[in-house]
Amino acid sequence: MISKKPADSYTVMTEIVLPNDTNVFGNLMGGRLMYWMDIAAAIAAMKHCNAPVVTASVDNISFENPIKLGNTVHIEANVTRAFTTSMEVHLKVWGEDYTQQYRYKSNEAYYTFVALDPNRKPRLVPTLEPVTPEDQHLFDGALRRRQLRLILGGKMKPDDAVELKALFFKEQL
Amino acid sequence: MISKKPADSYTVMTEIVLPNDTNVFGNLMGGRLMYWMDIAAAIAAMKHCNAPVVTASVDNISFENPIKLGNTVHIEANVTRAFTTSMEVHLKVWGEDYTQQYRYKSNEAYYTFVALDPNRKPRLVPTLEPVTPEDQHLFDGALRRRQLRLILGGKMKPDDAVELKALFFKEQL
Amino acid sequence: MISKKPADSYTVMTEIVLPNDTNVFGNLMGGRLMYWMDIAAAIAAMKHCNAPVVTASVDNISFENPIKLGNTVHIEANVTRAFTTSMEVHLKVWGEDYTQQYRYKSNEAYYTFVALDPNRKPRLVPTLEPVTPEDQHLFDGALRRRQLRLILGGKMKPDDAVELKALFFKEQL
Amino acid sequence: MISKKPADSYTVMTEIVLPNDTNVFGNLMGGRLMYWMDIAAAIAAMKHCNAPVVTASVDNISFENPIKLGNTVHIEANVTRAFTTSMEVHLKVWGEDYTQQYRYKSNEAYYTFVALDPNRKPRLVPTLEPVTPEDQHLFDGALRRRQLRLILGGKMKPDDAVELKALFFKEQL
Amino acid sequence: MISKKPADSYTVMTEIVLPNDTNVFGNLMGGRLMYWMDIAAAIAAMKHCNAPVVTASVDNISFENPIKLGNTVHIEANVTRAFTTSMEVHLKVWGEDYTQQYRYKSNEAYYTFVALDPNRKPRLVPTLEPVTPEDQHLFDGALRRRQLRLILGGKMKPDDAVELKALFFKEQL
Amino acid sequence: MISKKPADSYTVMTEIVLPNDTNVFGNLMGGRLMYWMDIAAAIAAMKHCNAPVVTASVDNISFENPIKLGNTVHIEANVTRAFTTSMEVHLKVWGEDYTQQYRYKSNEAYYTFVALDPNRKPRLVPTLEPVTPEDQHLFDGALRRRQLRLILGGKMKPDDAVELKALFFKEQL
Repeated sequence: MISKKPADSYTVMTEIVLPNDTNVFGNLMGGRLMYWMDIAAAIAAMKHCNAPVVTASVDNISFENPIKLGNTVHIEANVTRAFTTSMEVHLKVWGEDYTQQYRYKSNEAYYTFVALDPNRKPRLVPTLEPVTPEDQHLFDGALRRRQLRLILGGKMKPDDAVELKALFFKEQL
Repeated sequence: MISKKPADSYTVMTEIVLPNDTNVFGNLMGGRLMYWMDIAAAIAAMKHCNAPVVTASVDNISFENPIKLGNTVHIEANVTRAFTTSMEVHLKVWGEDYTQQYRYKSNEAYYTFVALDPNRKPRLVPTLEPVTPEDQHLFDGALRRRQLRLILGGKMKPDDAVELKALFFKEQL
Repeated sequence: MISKKPADSYTVMTEIVLPNDTNVFGNLMGGRLMYWMDIAAAIAAMKHCNAPVVTASVDNISFENPIKLGNTVHIEANVTRAFTTSMEVHLKVWGEDYTQQYRYKSNEAYYTFVALDPNRKPRLVPTLEPVTPEDQHLFDGALRRRQLRLILGGKMKPDDAVELKALFFKEQL
Repeated sequence: MISKKPADSYTVMTEIVLPNDTNVFGNLMGGRLMYWMDIAAAIAAMKHCNAPVVTASVDNISFENPIKLGNTVHIEANVTRAFTTSMEVHLKVWGEDYTQQYRYKSNEAYYTFVALDPNRKPRLVPTLEPVTPEDQHLFDGALRRRQLRLILGGKMKPDDAVELKALFFKEQL
Repeated sequence: MISKKPADSYTVMTEIVLPNDTNVFGNLMGGRLMYWMDIAAAIAAMKHCNAPVVTASVDNISFENPIKLGNTVHIEANVTRAFTTSMEVHLKVWGEDYTQQYRYKSNEAYYTFVALDPNRKPRLVPTLEPVTPEDQHLFDGALRRRQLRLILGGKMKPDDAVELKALFFKEQL
Repeated sequence: MISKKPADSYTVMTEIVLPNDTNVFGNLMGGRLMYWMDIAAAIAAMKHCNAPVVTASVDNISFENPIKLGNTVHIEANVTRAFTTSMEVHLKVWGEDYTQQYRYKSNEAYYTFVALDPNRKPRLVPTLEPVTPEDQHLFDGALRRRQLRLILGGKMKPDDAVELKALFFKEQL
């Protein structure tokens, strides 16, 4: 099983915000956006492992700017690191108003997927080899984010999160 | 502005998993579930503050058991703590197969909402007064979760997260 | 097969009225509401019989107050009586505007479901034992409503509807 | 305001049953069908009164034969009688499997609509003049169905339902 | 296999334009209309051949008048000619505003469908016999439209399109 | 008003085929695909003109390979030529099965959009300057396709379609 590069799983998704996607202020609902992000991230994960995938977890998401009715949503996704049977996917989300020529950040997020075999058991996935410095930065951070995920999910004791402990209070995750 | 209790915002949402909600394994897609959770949590937040709300952030979510096509999804939500203009909402999600009389946990999550005034500016929300020990436990943890959220969002320096620092490696968030 | 109580099948469903659910006046369309009521009632029926169910009939529904865009819809459902292979489910529907702290009745309704076995043939369901006086009142009325249903569906001669005949002109169904 | 004929409001709606319209047996859900019927009936009512309409009530509906995934749904609707500001609409629903050349009845129903003026107040609608014997039969029955509706909705005392009383036990409504 | 008439496949579909069907001007999106037309045309094709069908191609469509939110869409479809295993379906689309009593043309179109057998291979379909002069006109034009379709799809050399060549510059297709 | 290049409007849209998007064979319905193509093409057109757009017409589309349930749909779109107030958009559509590592063409198409000003009147759009030989090829063909569109729409006499006449029987449109 050969390794893959982040660019191999690069996925772009584009949507227009329609009336039913909006709250009473006419802005895209957070829940609808998370639904689209889940689909974009699942496609990136499938590109990496060439197998069906299921969402295992979603990291913290902060919604910075509302995306308005009629505006376009851009979602970019790619795998940042592979862990035996799971993959972390990084997403960047922008809104864009073409009539105003105004493009604005909505959020960044990390989704984790598990690859499944035909019996619905986890299966091995190719390793990921970072290429650019940005790839390497996301690859390194993936280990700490994974430890935080396991602690928050009650599956790791904080004392065992060596990389997280060392770095948590030095830089942003 | 009087304070409110967690039970005042208690909300129950029930859905059946239909074909379009499922992935190729016939299980509920994570993204669809997050969409429903967003609506249930928004209702709980509106109950607390009696104002329109927008999703500000979502904490880590781990999906523990897949929910199958035709099964029922139960979502329970209530506000755990209020912070000036924002509210943290705790959600518990179960799946249930009535024909098998089998009920199973899917996940727990925390969504944060901001209340808006008619000019779309943040407005004050009632404080939350915990009543039961469980309420108090969630209320106390909300402060640490908020500090983690702010650090992860780049809006707080780790050194200033006093409560989180003191407790992060002692108990689960 | 043990009998069950009305509380055993108690189901709560909560929805927000989104743009696509509304007519040109910005109010919830009757058809969309009946769709949601069908799902809530089906869940209540499945809770009672622990088997798959199909909608057999719907009684008269009067829509009293329109539910507005952005308002919350509350649907409460529970089984009121079981008849060999079918169950009558009672639904109460409210709208609620949290920003105005205004809660208003939309309608009450009765849906009837049939339980099916794996060969899609009707199967026996547990009997229902009323507990409270309200339970008893709904349980008693179910017989008359069933006779009316059978007459309206052309499956019973009016002369055979003994309970209905005796009571029809004395009190509301 | 001139009167209209039943044929003036005659409306045909045709749909294919898609996966998301079905229950676990692969048959059209009752709730989805009632949603489509509401739209077909609303169009018939608008044709009659040339004004926006809202659903006031729905009479008893019995679902006789399940409509299968991939089958076609036919809904025919027309106004049967007008009452000052409201209209009764009669619906006939069939399923059809073209590959088997098999056409089967699903149900018949009566929906009632109220016409609204721009201030959302009920407005007068044209009277309906029956033409064929079938038109006349439905026109005559509409009065009794209306009395039953008012009694079931608690808006008329059974003793005042003269036509219903006289005929209720003589023929089917 | 007997032949069929255009009237045998005549299909009427009626829809109301809801908020999610519209663009930022509050008019029906072209893409949504083509989706409805595809379903109406598929029903007409199934009526003709009594077999499952798949869309093979769509001819040029010009959208003449926008259809507004809340207006009714009428789609009429019938088969115009059969070619061994495929059928051409002609569609006429109108919008109608009942409150203004205003009916306006949206577009005309031709969809082509292929009938499939249980192994998903193309199967023979009944021939079509035109009855009225209008039927004959559409039947004759179908041959030229088919040649144009094959040329545009790169499956026929222009020199072989005898009927099209002879008539293309004499009258409208 | 400066001119733009084809790459300026380049748009990528990615979707997963869900159950409700499929016909009875489990393949993507043509109508759903045309709906997605309409949105992708509209985004490309808005990128070019920075104004709201409406679909004016769609050219012949042939569906070559069915796209299966669970497969990914890729839609690429960019403007090929601008005509005073309208733009022609070229779309390429592929399906992809990541588990089989199999990518296949579905179709190519041309959609035409008109840019509107705030009064809903057509407005001028920037001219398009082709850059690559492929750009130039599409740019040149756009004139002939436009003449064919006008002839098919009854807005141009065949004799006036000089470019189309000269080239129609020499190469594919």
